Amino acid sequence: MLDPRRHKQLEKLIAKLGIPVTDEINWSLLDLALTHPTLSQTANYQQLEFVGDSVVRLAASELLLETYPDATVGEFSAIRKVLVSDQTLAEIAQSFGFDNYLLIANSAAGDSAGKGSRLADAFEAVLGALYLSTTTMALVRPWLDPILSDLAIEIRNDPALHNYKDALQEWTQGKYKLLPEYKISEIDTGHGSEERFIAEVWLKEECLGEGKGRTKKSAEQAAAKEAFLALIA
Amino acid sequence: MLDPRRHKQLEKLIAKLGIPVTDEINWSLLDLALTHPTLSQTANYQQLEFVGDSVVRLAASELLLETYPDATVGEFSAIRKVLVSDQTLAEIAQSFGFDNYLLIANSAAGDSAGKGSRLADAFEAVLGALYLSTTTMALVRPWLDPILSDLAIEIRNDPALHNYKDALQEWTQGKYKLLPEYKISEIDTGHGSEERFIAEVWLKEECLGEGKGRTKKSAEQAAAKEAFLALIA
Repeated sequence: MLDPRRHKQLEKLIAKLGIPVTDEINWSLLDLALTHPTLSQTANYQQLEFVGDSVVRLAASELLLETYPDATVGEFSAIRKVLVSDQTLAEIAQSFGFDNYLLIANSAAGDSAGKGSRLADAFEAVLGALYLSTTTMALVRPWLDPILSDLAIEIRNDPALHNYKDALQEWTQGKYKLLPEYKISEIDTGHGSEERFIAEVWLKEECLGEGKGRTKKSAEQAAAKEAFLALIA
Repeated sequence: MLDPRRHKQLEKLIAKLGIPVTDEINWSLLDLALTHPTLSQTANYQQLEFVGDSVVRLAASELLLETYPDATVGEFSAIRKVLVSDQTLAEIAQSFGFDNYLLIANSAAGDSAGKGSRLADAFEAVLGALYLSTTTMALVRPWLDPILSDLAIEIRNDPALHNYKDALQEWTQGKYKLLPEYKISEIDTGHGSEERFIAEVWLKEECLGEGKGRTKKSAEQAAAKEAFLALIA
């Protein structure tokens, strides 16, 4: 039996998400979904997170297909990858103040570097708990759809917002089962130069794009951007 | 409107899967799920495959959690990875003769090297079509669960069973962000010879392993096995 105060607290979160507070919800699962492994090695959110990661992927897939029936599968994959990324999920969780509902050992709560992945994990676990409550999307999609939908618009307008390298890789793997390769040279040895490195991105025998940057990473991102935008154009 | 002969054909497949032939099934979606991109650039299985890939992942996650409530999440992930791999899905599709239901241009049908991924794609697409027919797992899990369940037992007993190539790829991508490359030669032109092909698997400039087999695929698996076992030793 769930402690009545914890129950009340979870009801508050559910109401915040815009979900009707009903008996359909499996409150014990929800409690588990918001219990960090530092509190219990066995009764924590990990298994629900495992299910929830598939739930959010499916919810995103359905939404994208319904919203953009004419988009290519490459585009779908690239957008979905960002939607289900830890970064995006942590941002959504943060916007609902999941932090305040997650039971966690004090020692771990202070680890601010791990906060993002903790929030993403808990968010997936909550989706898992809601899905398993009815084994349908009935408690998930009504409130999650509008959020994913707004994000999908942002991402479509600026896929880079998050990650052109990831987006490109997703695309080439989906289409050719190959990873793009980056070739980098240092062209301006002055440290701090905005054009210190030049990166080319290759797929099979073809150079898909190139870009410059102050770091190897930014040069690669610039090259990936050029390649990705050309591919989805 | 679906051609009545095609409709009959799809009913046969549905019956084979053990699903009741009802109006719940969206037959046009199912038709699409079994239409290869060589027949139509736009009306083909690709979008449904995109959804179905999440459907099978969710079905496998639910099943594993129900069947092995005490397994670790690491174990879950390892088993799920094999369950949802192209190889496993192609094998299931093959066992139901999906080949006979897939509409495909003659030119592409002859491409036997692509057969595995074609079957896996079509299988995912069919799962997508069945899921979207009711937007529940009602048409998916009853027949898919026993299949995945048997496979999960096999995989738990021998995690490498299905897939040294996948295991190796997982390893090289995780460690080097690179895919291994296979080089194949025919060394014994006698059809049916157990040592007809020899495969080498390379990573960067290094040959990691080699293996022989009756088919290109089995030679690759043998090479991947040698490489993988050496790497994890």
